[in-house]
Amino acid sequence: MKLEKLQHIPTLEDIERTHEAIQHMIHRTPVLTSESMDQISGARLFFKCENFQKIGAFKMRGAASASIRLTEEEKKRGLATHSSGNHAQAVAKSAKILGIPAYIVMPENAPSIKKAATKGYGATITFCEPTLEARETTLQKIIDKTGATFIHPYDNYNVIAGQATAAKELVEEGGNDFDILMAPVGGGGVCCGTALIAHYLLPNGIAIGAEPRMVDDAYRSFKKQKLEFNTSIGTIADGLRTNLSEKTLSIILQYLEDIIRVDEDEIIAAMRLLWERMKILVEPSSAVPLAAVLKEKDRFRGKKVGIILTGGNVDLGKLPF
Amino acid sequence: MKLEKLQHIPTLEDIERTHEAIQHMIHRTPVLTSESMDQISGARLFFKCENFQKIGAFKMRGAASASIRLTEEEKKRGLATHSSGNHAQAVAKSAKILGIPAYIVMPENAPSIKKAATKGYGATITFCEPTLEARETTLQKIIDKTGATFIHPYDNYNVIAGQATAAKELVEEGGNDFDILMAPVGGGGVCCGTALIAHYLLPNGIAIGAEPRMVDDAYRSFKKQKLEFNTSIGTIADGLRTNLSEKTLSIILQYLEDIIRVDEDEIIAAMRLLWERMKILVEPSSAVPLAAVLKEKDRFRGKKVGIILTGGNVDLGKLPF
Repeated sequence: MKLEKLQHIPTLEDIERTHEAIQHMIHRTPVLTSESMDQISGARLFFKCENFQKIGAFKMRGAASASIRLTEEEKKRGLATHSSGNHAQAVAKSAKILGIPAYIVMPENAPSIKKAATKGYGATITFCEPTLEARETTLQKIIDKTGATFIHPYDNYNVIAGQATAAKELVEEGGNDFDILMAPVGGGGVCCGTALIAHYLLPNGIAIGAEPRMVDDAYRSFKKQKLEFNTSIGTIADGLRTNLSEKTLSIILQYLEDIIRVDEDEIIAAMRLLWERMKILVEPSSAVPLAAVLKEKDRFRGKKVGIILTGGNVDLGKLPF
Repeated sequence: MKLEKLQHIPTLEDIERTHEAIQHMIHRTPVLTSESMDQISGARLFFKCENFQKIGAFKMRGAASASIRLTEEEKKRGLATHSSGNHAQAVAKSAKILGIPAYIVMPENAPSIKKAATKGYGATITFCEPTLEARETTLQKIIDKTGATFIHPYDNYNVIAGQATAAKELVEEGGNDFDILMAPVGGGGVCCGTALIAHYLLPNGIAIGAEPRMVDDAYRSFKKQKLEFNTSIGTIADGLRTNLSEKTLSIILQYLEDIIRVDEDEIIAAMRLLWERMKILVEPSSAVPLAAVLKEKDRFRGKKVGIILTGGNVDLGKLPF
């Protein structure tokens, strides 16, 4: 089946075709529930465990979706990206599955577990200063030299269509009577995918994003209806330090109901709850939606809520508790 | 269905009837596999995730099995036990489900998360010095006063029949073509249950126990065919510090193939692997069988191995990494 490269906001059919095409590159991850989490939150929570996804995060879906759409000629030249973590691993793993080269630019301060894993998939890694400019300049040089195709981590409709498949599976498993679907907001890829699925598949449900207050560019962009940027990246939720893009903001403005901001201590407390009560490892970014549910309990009380647990790649040597 | 109190080594029918009777008190936990764990070990590993069991450990099965067998009169007077951790929670939770009292004696140095959880189930807790004598004396006083029934954590055929249901589910899910089933050995409850299931349900499979070298009473008892005791309890695997009993040694001598001893650094490394690669929280005791597989790779190479991950109740404030 030949998939087109998407130049538009993914339709339901685009997402369905993407899902079918990437089956061999992803796991169908479990949806977990927990009596004690329901008691603590007052809501009925369904956790889509993308921490159990290949490479330990939902990013595998988007990278798979983008890379399978390349022509044979493009595939031969390989995949390229810059990423501080999970997207790097996802591109590296996609390339490994497809048997093609991957060139990854990573900031020197990326978590060591993510560096090691990316290397383990056989990618060629180039380290750079931890600034967006350094990442982009370094990447451009590599692309000029190799002709590899840049897979943007979120400003790419093919990637967004892939990320949407997580929420699609959640609704297939949990039913279409969710009141609310939730995802964290970083660059906006999985949040957009989740919002699209809520729009397409839930007759009476909405999507809400959750974001660390320390990097609340998405909240501000959402309120002002234009791109705003972060001036600090100090949050523990290392997957959410990036800014929205034109494409993701556009989808968020059309399909997302709201964005809730949470503080660092709330993120850490929610992360600890997920570890202790559900016995699963999730990275701080994954805990942000639960932190939002616990912060605004009245808003979620009695509601059926689906939460994307985005990933589980934590550095065990640097835990916040 | 009225279940008899077992005065003999559980038969397959005893285990089957027990399993049916405790359904409403336990979760059917998932069996997980992992490509990367298979690569690292060279074996085909199937992990029975009792860390996702109610109260976070397999102990729920044994406590449920023992407590449902009590007469109505005995139930009214309640359950009693001494335990440093998971068995305490299991008895407390069983009592809560049955709507009866629970009296738990815990050593003062029990992990704080286990103390808090036991209290959370509504049990009456009495703390004592961390010695077996203090535990037994304190418990006896409580039993004299209340008439509650002592649920021994492992020297009890009803408890052993309950623990066996974990391996039974593992075989139901993974097939009866396992070469080896593995469980850690502490007091011997889950190890005996696993050995019985290998005997009853695997046409060509055996059971192997795994034990921390620091508390290798079971290994020595197995070799000398008589009860030996630990002189230190220094292992990180806090669930395995207890000694075998007459009942558990007898089953181990008849039905267990071997016991492999592992060192503390091997336990910690195996635990870390389970956390990092499988994104699940397991307590140190759970990692002991995997540590044995990794220690004796040649013995397990290419084999289909089922491992009971016994529990996930770790104190996040006291991690070894």
